[in-house]
Amino acid sequence: MTLPHQKIFDQLCTHARETALLAAAESALGWDERTMMPPEAAEYRAEQLTLLAGLIHQRRTDPRLGEWLGELAAGPLASGNGEGAHSDVATTIRQLKREYDKRIKLPQSLVEELTRTASLAQHAWEIARTKDDFASFQPHLAKTFELKRAQADALGYVESRYDALVDDFEPGERSSNLEKVLAELRQALVPLVLAIAASQRRPDATIIARTFPIDAQSQFSREASAKIGFDYQRGRLDVTSHPFCTGLGPNDCRITTRYEENFFNCAFFGTLHEAGHGIYDQGLRGDWYGLPPGEAISLGIHESQSRLWENLVGRSRAFWSHFFPRAQECFPQALGDVSLEAFYGAINDVRPSLIRVEADEATYNLHILIRFELEQALLADELKVADLPTAWNEKYQTYLGIRPPNDADGVLQDIHWSAGLVGYFPTYSLGNLYASQFYDAADEQLGGLEAQFARGEFAPLRSWLGENIHRHGQCYTAGELVEKVTGKPLSHAPLIAHLRRKLAPLYGLD
Amino acid sequence: MTLPHQKIFDQLCTHARETALLAAAESALGWDERTMMPPEAAEYRAEQLTLLAGLIHQRRTDPRLGEWLGELAAGPLASGNGEGAHSDVATTIRQLKREYDKRIKLPQSLVEELTRTASLAQHAWEIARTKDDFASFQPHLAKTFELKRAQADALGYVESRYDALVDDFEPGERSSNLEKVLAELRQALVPLVLAIAASQRRPDATIIARTFPIDAQSQFSREASAKIGFDYQRGRLDVTSHPFCTGLGPNDCRITTRYEENFFNCAFFGTLHEAGHGIYDQGLRGDWYGLPPGEAISLGIHESQSRLWENLVGRSRAFWSHFFPRAQECFPQALGDVSLEAFYGAINDVRPSLIRVEADEATYNLHILIRFELEQALLADELKVADLPTAWNEKYQTYLGIRPPNDADGVLQDIHWSAGLVGYFPTYSLGNLYASQFYDAADEQLGGLEAQFARGEFAPLRSWLGENIHRHGQCYTAGELVEKVTGKPLSHAPLIAHLRRKLAPLYGLD
Repeated sequence: MTLPHQKIFDQLCTHARETALLAAAESALGWDERTMMPPEAAEYRAEQLTLLAGLIHQRRTDPRLGEWLGELAAGPLASGNGEGAHSDVATTIRQLKREYDKRIKLPQSLVEELTRTASLAQHAWEIARTKDDFASFQPHLAKTFELKRAQADALGYVESRYDALVDDFEPGERSSNLEKVLAELRQALVPLVLAIAASQRRPDATIIARTFPIDAQSQFSREASAKIGFDYQRGRLDVTSHPFCTGLGPNDCRITTRYEENFFNCAFFGTLHEAGHGIYDQGLRGDWYGLPPGEAISLGIHESQSRLWENLVGRSRAFWSHFFPRAQECFPQALGDVSLEAFYGAINDVRPSLIRVEADEATYNLHILIRFELEQALLADELKVADLPTAWNEKYQTYLGIRPPNDADGVLQDIHWSAGLVGYFPTYSLGNLYASQFYDAADEQLGGLEAQFARGEFAPLRSWLGENIHRHGQCYTAGELVEKVTGKPLSHAPLIAHLRRKLAPLYGLD
Repeated sequence: MTLPHQKIFDQLCTHARETALLAAAESALGWDERTMMPPEAAEYRAEQLTLLAGLIHQRRTDPRLGEWLGELAAGPLASGNGEGAHSDVATTIRQLKREYDKRIKLPQSLVEELTRTASLAQHAWEIARTKDDFASFQPHLAKTFELKRAQADALGYVESRYDALVDDFEPGERSSNLEKVLAELRQALVPLVLAIAASQRRPDATIIARTFPIDAQSQFSREASAKIGFDYQRGRLDVTSHPFCTGLGPNDCRITTRYEENFFNCAFFGTLHEAGHGIYDQGLRGDWYGLPPGEAISLGIHESQSRLWENLVGRSRAFWSHFFPRAQECFPQALGDVSLEAFYGAINDVRPSLIRVEADEATYNLHILIRFELEQALLADELKVADLPTAWNEKYQTYLGIRPPNDADGVLQDIHWSAGLVGYFPTYSLGNLYASQFYDAADEQLGGLEAQFARGEFAPLRSWLGENIHRHGQCYTAGELVEKVTGKPLSHAPLIAHLRRKLAPLYGLD
């Protein structure tokens, strides 16, 4: 007996929603592990997460899904033409089929070896970083790239192996496109950063290294994140060591931060950043939770939302013309004698540095470019893992004008490769690029965002993002969405224009 | 092919441990719901918990369990005679079989009706309590007791229906035994409480109603709970509205409390109480987690551990001769001018009151007796639900000498019956009785506990409890354990002796 397609579609959705209930339970345990769990509980928690991951994987590779999706993809509900392709129903079928097809392409043995290798490699990486000993990590990294090549080959690709890997994080994105845009970005960015480094005019960055009591930081970060629109009735802010944002359900978004008493930026901009991720999650349609129309498009688009609130809004003069008086109330000792202009300069201090996660808005993208170019070369076997530290240091010299004194502060600083995350780094820069491009479109359509910020009005921008980006879920790819929202394909120009506009006066450039 | 029994046993344990991983995930989500979850997330969390409960129920009624347990129970590993019956392996088989056999006796339709009725009845109870309107709750309660009779009949019993229900909370306990011990307790307790109520000599209870800043309460409660032995490397203390203790794994015990700025006892003794539960959980053998030798025996024994630390230790003069100076440091405003004797009197204030959860150490058991007698009468159909409020009020008059002015502060005060928990109340008094009986045995064997407390030494008592009670898990029933540890069956005498010893001098009784 053949079921009508609507009935098959309903079964499919019920199945996916149940899987999402389990996946959200997994997220809850993961959140707890990183914010609340007592130290000795780690081993049992790992067992729990392994069991849940297994149950979820089983459900996501359930052969019934393949049957249902095969039938639906060939039928009228998948209606592949024109705007119909972006409908919720067509999107659900298309995206679930995409995920299912990818999943079953990977042999179980490869999945297990990737997991095992990542676990061993992360452990080796932690030790290697502590001991500044790249050699001990080298065989793990070689093995990782070997397996990633096998993964790419199993998944298949049109242009390059790298495409097959990027696709996990930025679905549909191509290396050739990334290379083009990021090369343009590099060409404009390197001279700008070098000019700033050479400038005699510098803000007094010691202002933000004064003493900011943690209770007051917590209070102020909460106020600002609530004001820009993170909904605390549907979310929480907690403390962790490596901040993140995670969703535990359609009305349960958890953001995290960490406090440094003598560094204002860490918690404040970190909270705005995570709140930006959270506002995206909270803007997804709850009635589609656990299904593609209610899920984020890509890491790049997700990152665009966090960077937009953190940098384009949170580091703007207008934002602080609203918030600075309150900041002075919260931190009378540190900021009582500071002018708005001096503070604005300090939070926009640009200087080449070694560590990606501590980099400023401008130099950050150069850190990403280096990693992007190196991981492409490694994957293509054009660079030997043994030669990686030298290649790393040379690129830092060329792009940032500084050279890491050791591998711990160089090639060993990031966890990503050890965790098998190859093709992930460019999504950070994509986030910055998308953010500027979206911001310009919003600014034009809403007519002068800065004037709104100065009045403490953030709801118009948030609503605009909700309408134009969040509520679409996965109905458009990132590339389609950028064109739909901004009328143009992805480009380096808006970000460069934004940085020049802001930094030229601060650093006395022409 | 028949598997060797050891292999079947191993399969059984693997299955049960996996179920425990899921059950602990359920506990984690439940803990989060009551301590952390943002308000709007309740609906999705309920869906998650329902799904997990279904998966767990499916596993616990897996017919393979029945086959494995049937085979094992008839074989050599179940070795039923003498001390062998208390071995870990025999206990595992016996207890898992006991639970499985009980579970499959209940028809699925009855389980579902019990769940549905409890959900509706709790909702109705909340409204009825708010509006002081017993009549609106009455049909739900009648339905509940009707279903509980059906449940008891499906489970079967030897002496009375009530036995079948008590068995869920206090395995193997019989109404006839409870009636005997609790009647003896009542006969000794009623005159004592009435004599105290009539006494002219009263402590100044207003001391504990002074202002105790919440940060200082949190600090002091943490210190004291850590000092008596709750291990914060394997647990946490958080805030909730109805405090509880829950286990999320062998090294992850979460206790909770709530703070009232103008009532010292609430958080402090509440924390000691939950820490007592937590110390029991932390004393169970982690290598048997999820299996009967690593699980608590009964609610009564669990409660004995919380009451022992809360009342027998925490309300003793010796405990405070150690802790009072520190309390004065933490609360200089409230306690700076208070003597140890006055404080000791205030925390041991005994007075008949209407609300069980606010009752003192002595009158508490009378609240339980009333509920025990009434729920037995309701289950036996000797009391009509419509006549319950009158019967309730009359018993309060007889046992405590006071009469509730309304049903909200009378028969509607507890959630238990609305949640289908019939046969649960006596475990609270069992806890008090066991606690005194264990305490006397420990005092005799360890030679003068009070002198140890006065020196701030709590490790000997905690180790004794660990050795004699915690580490046995379910290898003995509660009744067997009491006899093994104290040499005597359960009795009202130690509790009465303890109360007389403490209260006679405080209230000038003879």
